[in-house]
Order: sequence, then structure tokens, then C-alpha cells
Amino acid sequence: MEHISFPPLTRFAICGGTHGNEMTGIHVVRQMEKNKVVEVEDVSVMTVLSNPDAIKVCRRYMETDLNRCFTSALLSAPLNASSPHEMKRAHELNALLGPKGSPDAVDLLCDLHNTTSNMGLCFILFNYDWIALHICKYVQSKSSYGTIAVIQLVVPDSESFSLETVGKHGFSLEVGPQPTGVVRADIYNMVMETLDLIIEWLQKFNSGCTFEGGEMEAFNWTKTIDYPRDPTTHEITAAIHPHLQDNDFKLLHPGDPIFQSFTGETIKHEGEAAYPFFVNECAYYEKKIAFHLAQKVSISIPSISMQKENA
Amino acid sequence: MEHISFPPLTRFAICGGTHGNEMTGIHVVRQMEKNKVVEVEDVSVMTVLSNPDAIKVCRRYMETDLNRCFTSALLSAPLNASSPHEMKRAHELNALLGPKGSPDAVDLLCDLHNTTSNMGLCFILFNYDWIALHICKYVQSKSSYGTIAVIQLVVPDSESFSLETVGKHGFSLEVGPQPTGVVRADIYNMVMETLDLIIEWLQKFNSGCTFEGGEMEAFNWTKTIDYPRDPTTHEITAAIHPHLQDNDFKLLHPGDPIFQSFTGETIKHEGEAAYPFFVNECAYYEKKIAFHLAQKVSISIPSISMQKENA
Repeated sequence: MEHISFPPLTRFAICGGTHGNEMTGIHVVRQMEKNKVVEVEDVSVMTVLSNPDAIKVCRRYMETDLNRCFTSALLSAPLNASSPHEMKRAHELNALLGPKGSPDAVDLLCDLHNTTSNMGLCFILFNYDWIALHICKYVQSKSSYGTIAVIQLVVPDSESFSLETVGKHGFSLEVGPQPTGVVRADIYNMVMETLDLIIEWLQKFNSGCTFEGGEMEAFNWTKTIDYPRDPTTHEITAAIHPHLQDNDFKLLHPGDPIFQSFTGETIKHEGEAAYPFFVNECAYYEKKIAFHLAQKVSISIPSISMQKENA
Repeated sequence: MEHISFPPLTRFAICGGTHGNEMTGIHVVRQMEKNKVVEVEDVSVMTVLSNPDAIKVCRRYMETDLNRCFTSALLSAPLNASSPHEMKRAHELNALLGPKGSPDAVDLLCDLHNTTSNMGLCFILFNYDWIALHICKYVQSKSSYGTIAVIQLVVPDSESFSLETVGKHGFSLEVGPQPTGVVRADIYNMVMETLDLIIEWLQKFNSGCTFEGGEMEAFNWTKTIDYPRDPTTHEITAAIHPHLQDNDFKLLHPGDPIFQSFTGETIKHEGEAAYPFFVNECAYYEKKIAFHLAQKVSISIPSISMQKENA
């Protein structure tokens, strides 16, 4: 694959508290604001607490999931008095960090999340964003925290829904397991180290380094599996099976146990072999998601560097 | 210590959802209700979902923590229109399962809880309740789940505040780590097995078995440690230190790390050696509790059996 050059990446936004009960990002952003981290050699760092009202009451959201409000259609629809709190906040964040798809958008947006799933530290991004993928590769090679997965959602651009899609480039940094409402020091340290590595990469990029291309591994989302539910009450009738629990990113074969019903029966995986992730994420019960499935893919990424002025 | 005899223990109440986001008890109670578990050889089993409104929205409580509403003073104070939702519910539960301290109260009350702390399965009880302690001992000897701690709160009876104190005898079954809003099959299985063992013990007791006394180990609560906080905003400025995180019930010595501040400094334990528990429980941030401390004690429990009629 050929070489691609990009304009400088000088405006970096770090967001926390997009979900008001995912504590790592909230404390990281507050600490960076206390430290007055605003300009680090050619990179201006902007920190944002995305949903202050939800943070105040330590809930994921007030009226609707903020991190599903950033499609182009939702951002261009007019607001009115009865628009949900989060839709109003999405418009504010789009004005502050975007507008999405415009030249005014921040160059890179990193949104900090936690999950109750045993996913370790991972990146979630959309649609072959070469800048984002190069940053993932760099962090993977430098991090002291072992395997770091990259999850890619390949969808029409108009359907990309999350806050990081407001930036020209972006990703979510998703770290778990951590219960909602809890901050763990080990996870806080992991995120702080990762942010340092991202800033280091941006500085290298802006100083003219070329980053070599090559093959890299990612998990491309394929489908979603819901819990077995009572047809009348819609309450779940089974929990994630102990064999699947905590085994995110371990290949699931047809016939492997996936649920244990509350009466003790085992329910098995019936589809093709696939990699599970977001296994038993607490916020996904209401979204009817017990876990996601992905295929492992190899992505050929181009070498990249900064566009020379007037080039 | 001499022998003590007690009246038969025929009325057993199992409560779940006292905290509406602690999912094991909610699913256990729902499943027992589906199975129509109501009478098992001389023991009538009553199941209760304690806080249905909080369960519906998957929150700990609506207005105030239900599990702090059961002191004699609060239960005897008149309700009015502005009484918190949970205070009203406490009066209803006291009428259903108590009244506390009266001959009409259920014989045994087991309240099912989860914690985000790494406490495994443990019992929490008040003030040398011999029946409760004998049941703990029985479960410890029969359970397939390894070490089971017993935590005792020794306080004036008038200050005992939690739902299980409405029964003539009682305890909380506290199991973790499990994030709020999540049900884990392994923890569900653990609680189901424990309830079977408790019912088995009650049947043996009611059929006239004598249970030998002896020494048993418990953790007597001594004090509470809060997070370091910003004096102005009262926000926490540190997280539980990685050396303490997940190490509930492991002896903490003076000088051992207990917190890591968000700027990276280590804060050490300054008091006497003690056993920490409820380390990083999510619901305790607002209560200003980072962890509890206990002393390990040996309790001499008497042998017990059922009172013969007219004895």
C-alpha cells in the first residue's frame, strides 16, 4: 500500500464522563485540568467532561445514551424544548469539538470509557481511520500493559454514532473490568500511560517522522447476541455462562456454552466461530446485548507522515 | 459455655433487591418465586423483593438507602407525606416480616447483597446471634466455595439498622466482586447453594438435632477509613492503592500502602494492624467509606438445640 500524508495534528481533545458513571475518564480529565495540561510541544490538549449532569449523579446518562447521539442526522436535526438532555449536550459538544466533518473539528478526539467486561485496555474506532490505527499500533508496541485489542466498526459514515467521530480522527479508549461508580488505581495508571504515549506519537508525527505501514490485527464487529428472555416480561432468564464470563477475545466455537439459565441449563453457541467482546457489560442489559461478536482481520495500513506545507 | 435451646425456626424469609442494583438477590428471589418454593419440610420459605421501584430503574435506592432504615427509632417514628420512599417501604417490610423485636417476626431473615469488593461469599450479622453464627459455621463446613468470612457488628441493639434485624435472627449474605447492574453465573450458583445449606440446617434444627458449640473466627468491625478528599470540593483525590485493591481480609500493617493519589503519591496506613473489608465498594464513595477495618476475634459459641414443647 502506498504512502499517505496528512496535515499536522495539533489539536487533541481528551474527553471523560461521556458516561457519567465510568470513573477513570472523569478522574483523569479532572487531574489533567488541575495539572493545567494545555500545550505540550506542538500539541494543544483540550480536556472535556462530556456529561457533567450525569457525572454529578453518577449515572450513565440522564435521559438517553449520549454516546449514541453523534450521527450526522441527529446533529443536524433541530433541537426543541423536549429534546433529551443528552441530545442538547451533543449539539454543544459538536459546536465545541467539531462540527463533525468540518475543517474546524479537532484533529484527534480520544474518548475515555470503562466497561465491566474483562477487555483489558482496548481501542474502538470506525472505518479504517489510518491515523487512529497508527496510534493504536504505536501504543501496542510501547505499552507496559500487555495485549491491547483494536476493535473496528465498519459502517456507513452516516451511521457512526459516538463522540470520537466528531473529531477528524478519533477513538474510544475502553478499559475494564471496572464496576461503574468505582475507580481502580491500576486502570487509572494504564490510561495515564496510554495518553502520554498518544501525545508522544502526535509530537513525533508533527515533527516530521514517517510511520511505516504493514499488517495489523483488528477485531471487526459482526453481530450482537442478546440474553434469553421471558417472552412476556422480557426479563432475562439466563446469565453469561461461567465458561464465557471474563473470556473476552477468546475464540468461541459452535457448541461452546454461552449462557447458564437460572434453572441451571446450559445454552450453547450456535453460530460460526467468532471472538466475543463486551461480555456482560452492565449498561448493555437494557440495550439487549449480552455480548458482541467479531471476526479477527488483518489490515494493511499505509505508511504515513505529515504533509509538507504547500505540498 | 453451656447449652442454649431455642423455639423451632419455621418461618424463613429470603429477601433480594434491598439494593435495587445488586442483581444476584433479585434473580434468586424471582427464580424461587417461579419455582414456587414455599414449604420445604417444616420450613416455610417466604421470598420478598424489598425495593421494587429501585429494582425497576436498577439503582441502589430512590431517595435514601433502604438498608439503613430499620432502627427501632426509625420504625416507630410516624410517616408523613414527605417521608422518603424507602422509609415508607421499611414500614411495610417491618409489618410484613416483623414487627422487629416482636413474637410475630419471622424466625430467620436472610438478606441477599452484592459488593464490588473482592470479599467472596460472607455473612454479616449483629451482636452474637447464636442461631446466625451456627448457620455460618454449618455453611463454612459444607460449602464448596472455600473460605467464607463472618463479619460481626457489635453495637447497641437500638442502633442495628439493616433489614435482617427485623427477623428474630438474621444475617446478610454479601457476595462479590460483582459490579452493580450485572449478574454473574458463578455468584448466582454460590448463593443458590448457600440457601440450600441454610434450609438444610433449619430442617435439622427443627427435627431435634443438637449443634455442638466451640470456637469460631469472626471479623469484628472496628472503624472506617475515608478517601483523601479535596477540602473545598470534597471530591476524592486518591484511589485505593493497587496493593490494597482486591485484598479484603488480608492483614494490613502500619506503613502498608492504602491509597494512590491521582498525582501518583502513595499514602500509608497509620493505625494499628487490622483486617480491611469492603475495599472499594462503589456505593460507599458517597458514604465517605474507602474501606472498613476489623479485628479478628475468636467467639465461643454455645451448643444449641430446639426447645422441647413445654420445656
